[in-house]
This record gives sequence, structure tokens and C-alpha cells, in this order.
Amino acid sequence: RQWSDGGTVNCLLTTGGTGLGPRDNTPEATRSVIQREVPGLVDVMRQAGLLQTPMAALSRGVPGVRGCTLNINLPGSEKAVRESLAAILPVLEHAVDLIEGDTENAGYWFRRSGRPVRSTDETDDLWQEIATQLLDG
Amino acid sequence: RQWSDGGTVNCLLTTGGTGLGPRDNTPEATRSVIQREVPGLVDVMRQAGLLQTPMAALSRGVPGVRGCTLNINLPGSEKAVRESLAAILPVLEHAVDLIEGDTENAGYWFRRSGRPVRSTDETDDLWQEIATQLLDG
Amino acid sequence: RQWSDGGTVNCLLTTGGTGLGPRDNTPEATRSVIQREVPGLVDVMRQAGLLQTPMAALSRGVPGVRGCTLNINLPGSEKAVRESLAAILPVLEHAVDLIEGDTENAGYWFRRSGRPVRSTDETDDLWQEIATQLLDG
Repeated sequence: RQWSDGGTVNCLLTTGGTGLGPRDNTPEATRSVIQREVPGLVDVMRQAGLLQTPMAALSRGVPGVRGCTLNINLPGSEKAVRESLAAILPVLEHAVDLIEGDTENAGYWFRRSGRPVRSTDETDDLWQEIATQLLDG
Repeated sequence: RQWSDGGTVNCLLTTGGTGLGPRDNTPEATRSVIQREVPGLVDVMRQAGLLQTPMAALSRGVPGVRGCTLNINLPGSEKAVRESLAAILPVLEHAVDLIEGDTENAGYWFRRSGRPVRSTDETDDLWQEIATQLLDG
Repeated sequence: RQWSDGGTVNCLLTTGGTGLGPRDNTPEATRSVIQREVPGLVDVMRQAGLLQTPMAALSRGVPGVRGCTLNINLPGSEKAVRESLAAILPVLEHAVDLIEGDTENAGYWFRRSGRPVRSTDETDDLWQEIATQLLDG
């Protein structure tokens, strides 16, 4: 993914392809791209999912960092995407700050939509909207 | 393991060799064979184990998929095998279906014993029996 | 780390470098050194951390075995080190015994400080002390 090396994308989300189907290879693709894994993020997403369904045990997303970009694999269904995002939202901004070494605060992936991020609630709405867009397009 | 490539085994269980002893190398052997990891399965097995004993933190099983076969490392003791199987039974059949892309429903590993799988309860009994056989032989 | 191959160090602790900062590369260094991962240890440390702060999801320590030495990456802050050690203390001695195959009981890392290990409480104090030393020096 060239976006990770461009230096202007802080958080790159993918949806789908994390299951056990014959063509579900997103985690393997992500693992080949990232330089440092962040397994705790998938832990909290999976724990949140297991509260809804035992099938969450089968999700295989691999979160990790390449350069200054945090890559996160989200599930394929909108419901699961919302649950996963809700689980990691409390740490996502801090994670992006840490990756940048707190030196600059360049464009978030979802800033590309032209809306500033101000409060947790606004962030939350924005992410939900993006999740929906990702699922639609 | 040639069984994974044969196309007729859907779920391959191993027991033992997942600990910290000098000859406990099952996870490393499995990792070298599988093509796609399914870490969530070991998460739920470990969480179930931790309810019984803190020593469950030391189990190192690596579940994963090679071709159409799901490989799962179970612990060495019969008690731990039963607990681990109970934890993943709710998702095991669905996992095998997903791996096959829902196109066919070929022989489960435990179908080799000649008994059909009909209900969750029957499955449960069958697996328990297999676990015992694995531990005895 | 030459200590892992020397045969006299049973448990090697590191602190810091497990986060997402640009120079946080301890997990990658550890992964390149260990021969067998023990992911359950980081699971229990992370679960303990998540009870304190959601930021624990961002810790990336990789515990594992090289030869007869158990390598464990602890977080960088003293508070987090204490919480992590408390979470794994119930299994740490057993883990070291298993790695040695129960044949001999050579020097623990913290035996280098010249104090014998007798009871869980004494071990606890000793580890806390070492954690403090690690953080100071």
C-alpha cells in the first residue's frame, strides 16, 4: 500500500477479508506490509466481538504500523465494523500521536473527508460515517 | 502433515507439546505448516483455561488453516483438552464451513470414526470421545 | 542477547520500548532472538493493564524462550511494570521450571542480586525491587 509510505495518511482502515473463506487474505496482505504489529488492538476488538457472538473468534485482523501509518483490518459486516471501531476509538488518536513521536499532527485518514476532528463524540460520528462509506463503496 | 493437503480432512487436532518443556515444539511445527493463522481460537481456549488455572497462560497452541484443513493444537492433559474443546465447539463447525467456501461439506476428521454429526450434543460427545482416544493412543 | 545462551540466566526482563513511538523496537528485537513464543504471558499482562487504562491495548511486548531463558518485555513506566509483574508472578516460577525440563534449577536472573527465593511474598518483593532498579538504571 503506497498510502503507508506517503507520510500523509495516519490511519488506514480496511474492511472485510479477515475471515476463513478461501479468498479471505487481508490479514496476510497486511502482515506483509506492516513493520511493527500491535496485537493488543485486535485483542480488544475481538473481546468486544465475543460479547456479541462466539463467531468473533474466527476474525483474523492484523493491526500494525508501517512508517507513520497505523493499518487496521476491520471485519466485513457494518455491524461488526461499528463494534470494532467503538472498541478501539478510546486509544486510536493516542496511538496515532505516539506513532508520530508527538512531533507533528499530520492528516488523519478521515481528515481527507475535509472535516476537522475536535471531540470524541465528533470523532465517533465521523468514524461511523466512514465505516458506512467504506461498506457502501 | 500430508493430511492437510489431501482435501478430505477438515479439522486436524493434535494434543500435547504446547507447553514450555524442552521438547514442546508442536506450535512451531504447526506454524511452519499452516498458511493462515486463526489467533482468536487460541484466545478463547486460553480464556477458558485461565478460569481454571493461571498456568493456562503458558499454553502456546497455534491454530490455523492449510488448504481446506483447520489445524488446532490442544493441550496435553485430558482435562485441559475437554475444556479447550468446549470453548471452541460453538464455532468449529461454522469455521470448517467457511474454510470450504460453503461449497461442499467433505469429511470431518472425526467422521473417520464412521459416526455422523447431527446435533451439537452429539458432536460434543463425539469430540470428547476423540479427545480420549487421542490421549490414550 | 548473549545472556540467553549462557545457560545461567533463567529469566531476562526488559523494560520500555514496547509502545508505538518511532524508536519503540523492543518487541521486534526480542522476536528476532527468541525461538519459541509464549503469547499467553502477554495476554494476561495486557488484560491486567486494560483494567487500569485502555492504552494498555497499545503495548506490544513479545514473551518467548531462547534456550533455557525466558525473555519478557515489560512496559516502560514503573506503575505498568508493577502491574505486569503482578499478573505473571503466579506462573513465572513454574514457567522457568518447565523450560529447564525440571532437571536442574539454575540461577534465576534475580538471584544475581544474591537473595534466595523462598516464598511467593518474598519473590514478589524481590521482583518489585528489581523493577525499580531497572527503571532507575
